[in-house]
Amino acid sequence: MNTTHAYAALDATSKLVPFELQRRALRDHDVQMDVLFCGVCHSDLHTARNEWKNTVYPAVPGHEIVGRVTAVGPQVSKYAVGDLVGVGCLVDSCRTCPSCKEGLEQYCEVGFVGTYNGADRETGENTYGGYSTALVVDEAFVLTVPENLDPAGVAPLLCAGITTYSPLRQWGAGPGRKVGIVGLGGLGHMGVKLAHAMGAHVVLFTTSASKIEDAKRLGADEVVISKNADEMEAHTNSFDLIVNTVAAQHDLNPFINLLKRDGTMTLVGAPEHDHPSPQVFNLIMKRRRLAGSLIGGIAETQEMLDFCGKHGITSDIEMIPMHKINDAYERMLKSDVKYRFVIDIDSMRK
Amino acid sequence: MNTTHAYAALDATSKLVPFELQRRALRDHDVQMDVLFCGVCHSDLHTARNEWKNTVYPAVPGHEIVGRVTAVGPQVSKYAVGDLVGVGCLVDSCRTCPSCKEGLEQYCEVGFVGTYNGADRETGENTYGGYSTALVVDEAFVLTVPENLDPAGVAPLLCAGITTYSPLRQWGAGPGRKVGIVGLGGLGHMGVKLAHAMGAHVVLFTTSASKIEDAKRLGADEVVISKNADEMEAHTNSFDLIVNTVAAQHDLNPFINLLKRDGTMTLVGAPEHDHPSPQVFNLIMKRRRLAGSLIGGIAETQEMLDFCGKHGITSDIEMIPMHKINDAYERMLKSDVKYRFVIDIDSMRK
Repeated sequence: MNTTHAYAALDATSKLVPFELQRRALRDHDVQMDVLFCGVCHSDLHTARNEWKNTVYPAVPGHEIVGRVTAVGPQVSKYAVGDLVGVGCLVDSCRTCPSCKEGLEQYCEVGFVGTYNGADRETGENTYGGYSTALVVDEAFVLTVPENLDPAGVAPLLCAGITTYSPLRQWGAGPGRKVGIVGLGGLGHMGVKLAHAMGAHVVLFTTSASKIEDAKRLGADEVVISKNADEMEAHTNSFDLIVNTVAAQHDLNPFINLLKRDGTMTLVGAPEHDHPSPQVFNLIMKRRRLAGSLIGGIAETQEMLDFCGKHGITSDIEMIPMHKINDAYERMLKSDVKYRFVIDIDSMRK
Repeated sequence: MNTTHAYAALDATSKLVPFELQRRALRDHDVQMDVLFCGVCHSDLHTARNEWKNTVYPAVPGHEIVGRVTAVGPQVSKYAVGDLVGVGCLVDSCRTCPSCKEGLEQYCEVGFVGTYNGADRETGENTYGGYSTALVVDEAFVLTVPENLDPAGVAPLLCAGITTYSPLRQWGAGPGRKVGIVGLGGLGHMGVKLAHAMGAHVVLFTTSASKIEDAKRLGADEVVISKNADEMEAHTNSFDLIVNTVAAQHDLNPFINLLKRDGTMTLVGAPEHDHPSPQVFNLIMKRRRLAGSLIGGIAETQEMLDFCGKHGITSDIEMIPMHKINDAYERMLKSDVKYRFVIDIDSMRK
């Protein structure tokens, strides 16, 4: 194997630095790709800084990956050299448990193998993600990227896109349905675009009046300033579904009260400290539901990419060269990005 | 109308005392009945003592009512004199909102009329419940009681029965499904019986080892002492559904962790102080759901009664005469009843 250039965190407190690694020799079903673009997800930062207390160093983050196939293993049937492909948060799973058999590998009962900071099922070696010039992944975990889309804007679909697409599909977003999206960040802006394309009536909740115009440009039919009790009150008992993308601790009750009977609020962000307790009464009186959702399975991720291809949907991005990653992390912490940083991996080849 | 004998709370701090009231003259669709039995629900006590801060005095509780029809209004088509009938928590609703049109009157968008402490839709007068010798209710809110069941044991089905039946049906309890019931009180013991009759594998959670034997007699396949972490751990990721009947404040996380992917825990008891906050991570990682459920609609309540008739299910009860109601309240507060007090209303006629 050729040497692969990457950026890695070597410990929890240092900045990411250039790092060289070897990708594995191709197994029968492996697809090798040149990475073209990699989105920057908040999970990358959590892992780099060991905020989830499980990081194996050196850590090479990145799980919003678009690349071009450069070689395939002898048994590969789905992909050929030259194909434009994607890799998201998963690169393997047990493939035999009920969840895997249902195509819900993200819920693999023995645990999926993460694209980075995971343990290879054959060797146990730490997996390295998309902040690198090349990647080798089993074809079962490789996605086909629609050629009509800007590949840089596709990268964030592999995590931010599927994370919002899956609960929207799960709970029936579509024509005649009123869907709320809480928060206009990397996840939220994808939620607005996707729910709008599904034909739902989309309401974006934000604490910041400065985001109203942009939310409408992205596809929101209405924008509600969630700090304004009167604005919230006007939407009581009216939502079929709310996808809450805010990972910061906040009171869920004002949103639960906006759900109609049998409505669901799905949480896709896990806060460092749990949200204050939701009032049980608010759940009981309208048979409302509070749920969680984790990215999506491989089949649904492909469905999402195809949907985005059909509707011309990509993420709004700000492109950066690899060496700007540490600055990007600092700006991400201040929500200073519209709406996702994407690394131009070619910047490591020059 | 003849004078009706009843027991009423005259204020929040006094005991219930004998009280006389007049039932309304029959409207076109009204059914008049002699009350035979009335179950004692914890809501009765909450209302008598104004613990929900909304009690109109005098208050005549009772919404688990079985009676015999004594007269019908000129337009009544569903019932005739002599029929054995039931009345639960609702005696009216708007009948035009989406929830009412779907037969989910308990979620009436403008608010259902409670069997007691409600406001009559025509006169605005306070409604009086089943701690009384006679009752007049619109036929649309009257249920048919299977003649093969002990009518005293049927009374608690009208609240405790339907409150557990509805979420069991909603979330698909049946053969091949593993169902948990948390708490073995009035609601929990009905949950065990009903889930067992539906063919589910039933696990009863209790804090009290003394309840193991009785839970198995009632139909539990397994009993777990929920304070025992090892016993709980053994059931991780294994439940399709958990119906949590415990209204006292408690930690929901140990139960949420027992749900398998896409599993649901439904809360049917509203605690005075909210439960500690559930961990969002536990919801996200398995796409689990936390939901609420409120009694049931009229159609589903009839379905539940028919189901109980078919399966020979009634509540385990302790019969009391009306004048023992104040003692019963004190014993209920100590959970000293297996599993529901039922008032022999004939005790007021002697």
